[in-house]
Amino acid sequence: MSTNNLVMSIDAMGGDNSPKVVIEGLNLARKRNPDIRFLVYGDEKKVTEEMDKFPDLKKVCQIFHTEEFVHNEDKPSHVIRNRATSMYQAVEAVKKGEAQAVVSAGNTGALMAISKMQLKTIQKIHRPAIVSIMPHQSGKYVMLDLGANTECDGINLAEFAIMGNILAKHALGIENPRVALMNIGAEEMKGKGEIHVASHIIKSAHLNMNFIGYIEPHDIPKNKADVVVADGFSGNIALKSVEGTCTLVMRMIKQAIKDSFFAKLGLPFMLGAMKKLKATMDPRLYNGAMFVGLNGLSVKSHGGTDAFGFSVAVENAAKLVRKDFVSAIRHELENIDLDELSQEAYYDVY
Amino acid sequence: MSTNNLVMSIDAMGGDNSPKVVIEGLNLARKRNPDIRFLVYGDEKKVTEEMDKFPDLKKVCQIFHTEEFVHNEDKPSHVIRNRATSMYQAVEAVKKGEAQAVVSAGNTGALMAISKMQLKTIQKIHRPAIVSIMPHQSGKYVMLDLGANTECDGINLAEFAIMGNILAKHALGIENPRVALMNIGAEEMKGKGEIHVASHIIKSAHLNMNFIGYIEPHDIPKNKADVVVADGFSGNIALKSVEGTCTLVMRMIKQAIKDSFFAKLGLPFMLGAMKKLKATMDPRLYNGAMFVGLNGLSVKSHGGTDAFGFSVAVENAAKLVRKDFVSAIRHELENIDLDELSQEAYYDVY
Repeated sequence: MSTNNLVMSIDAMGGDNSPKVVIEGLNLARKRNPDIRFLVYGDEKKVTEEMDKFPDLKKVCQIFHTEEFVHNEDKPSHVIRNRATSMYQAVEAVKKGEAQAVVSAGNTGALMAISKMQLKTIQKIHRPAIVSIMPHQSGKYVMLDLGANTECDGINLAEFAIMGNILAKHALGIENPRVALMNIGAEEMKGKGEIHVASHIIKSAHLNMNFIGYIEPHDIPKNKADVVVADGFSGNIALKSVEGTCTLVMRMIKQAIKDSFFAKLGLPFMLGAMKKLKATMDPRLYNGAMFVGLNGLSVKSHGGTDAFGFSVAVENAAKLVRKDFVSAIRHELENIDLDELSQEAYYDVY
Repeated sequence: MSTNNLVMSIDAMGGDNSPKVVIEGLNLARKRNPDIRFLVYGDEKKVTEEMDKFPDLKKVCQIFHTEEFVHNEDKPSHVIRNRATSMYQAVEAVKKGEAQAVVSAGNTGALMAISKMQLKTIQKIHRPAIVSIMPHQSGKYVMLDLGANTECDGINLAEFAIMGNILAKHALGIENPRVALMNIGAEEMKGKGEIHVASHIIKSAHLNMNFIGYIEPHDIPKNKADVVVADGFSGNIALKSVEGTCTLVMRMIKQAIKDSFFAKLGLPFMLGAMKKLKATMDPRLYNGAMFVGLNGLSVKSHGGTDAFGFSVAVENAAKLVRKDFVSAIRHELENIDLDELSQEAYYDVY
């Protein structure tokens, strides 16, 4: 067992092909990050069976047997009362300080509920948010909230901006991230009141932040912001609209080629370019929705991803832990009273 | 001058290349719809100059000189006080019953404000909405609201569903349209309270409607609904996310081909398929955001479109007028008290 400090707890039983995909994913993550130690929660027999294939991984893992695991259809209200699951135990390891981040490919609502209840929000943060790293035309940006909070007020959005700013620095290595609030117009008074309030709060808080105002969804892929802030409903709508459109366009392209004799003749020439394109847009590269704003990091891997996708989620979490993301948020909020600023902003806007 | 009943009033001075594009667009619309008569508002000299090129169009047009026109940067509060503009006059023609629909490629906010003030909402409709016809994988669907109402309650959404249902029948010719509320989950209690209230109202109103529940944005392109209902903020976010993603994917494909020597060799084979693909996704085919819920139809053509795009906006409006869209909405609401149903639904949900 390594004596290094970077420890992550893993729910081995979440996702479509667990624990196989999880263990294979850990092995890929280990190869690129030999300093991470893993606490692995799940069915000991099944986990050991998979792990025996990777002796080097075994050296950096500690397996903890759990009798139960969270099912996809389990209600959050139910799972938070059952301490016997691999997910619960994995989150609890972060609470106890035994690990700095937890990764699970299981039920999203369950992971959110358990993480929120166990890890609690960081002092001065009102609500945690779900963040993902997303692709734009020439790189990556972070977007939050993607669905943790259906309704948000100005102070929630301002806090998301603060967390997103730190996240873009730590996870994307951008020195001075451009932070924007997602809105349906670029002008000051367009859109919703809570967005105007958030804008006021951010401007008056003298944050260490490059706040660039509003961004409209069609400008997001144009590399105009590094951090896009939205309430969880709108953020989720935008995310799923992008997903749906990618699928639609790809399907239309395939159909157009299929329908054309000449295009089929040209297809062999295109294979290299198509492979490269597919690699850029590979959803596995962006796997790992991070649940931030808690005293510890909780990361949800896509349930249907493969080992490579799982390893990306682990690595993204590791990047944040290495930079001590949670402390950075606490530090940023130390001398700021957002509640007071929110009151002032509210009067200015309404 | 034809004696036919279908009369449309046209703001000839809106859009990037007016009145040239507008008049050329009218001529295209006329060729395919020889029964439409146009009342054309704008600078008489400029309009006549363009119209002299199309003697057959001139026969079905009446030109009304206006001294002024609405500029892109004009504030709605300003334009509603200036009766001298071509936009104001064109909308007023609908109010006076001289035309059944108005089409303008000018300032959206101005057209909305003037239309709302002059035409007033249909009795029992609380708020008008912006509707567009959109492409999915194998046809078209209608979506509303796309930005008229930033905040909506359950009754607004239910009314949008009623109007969208009629619109899909009239404009798309779908006999029994599948109507869905856009949400971030498919389960009954997912998402926002107002969406749950809308669902309750629709179900309890015994409407002549095939209501299929919630739809998530990634399922919209999969031909799962013919009418997608959202509040104006979320609808606008979804619309602009789709636009942005289309642009991004197309740019990535071009770049991938440009970067590959072999792909460039294969390009000539692909031209036919690409042309066909481009034709399917041609935004001009979906031009014309319809402002519905008013006593008369007001249609906003994209300011940057060409003559063909403008003619599509005219035709879409004409389709609705031919079926007497406004009366159909009034008829549908005749025996329904949505306010009462809304009260009941509110108690059920909250």
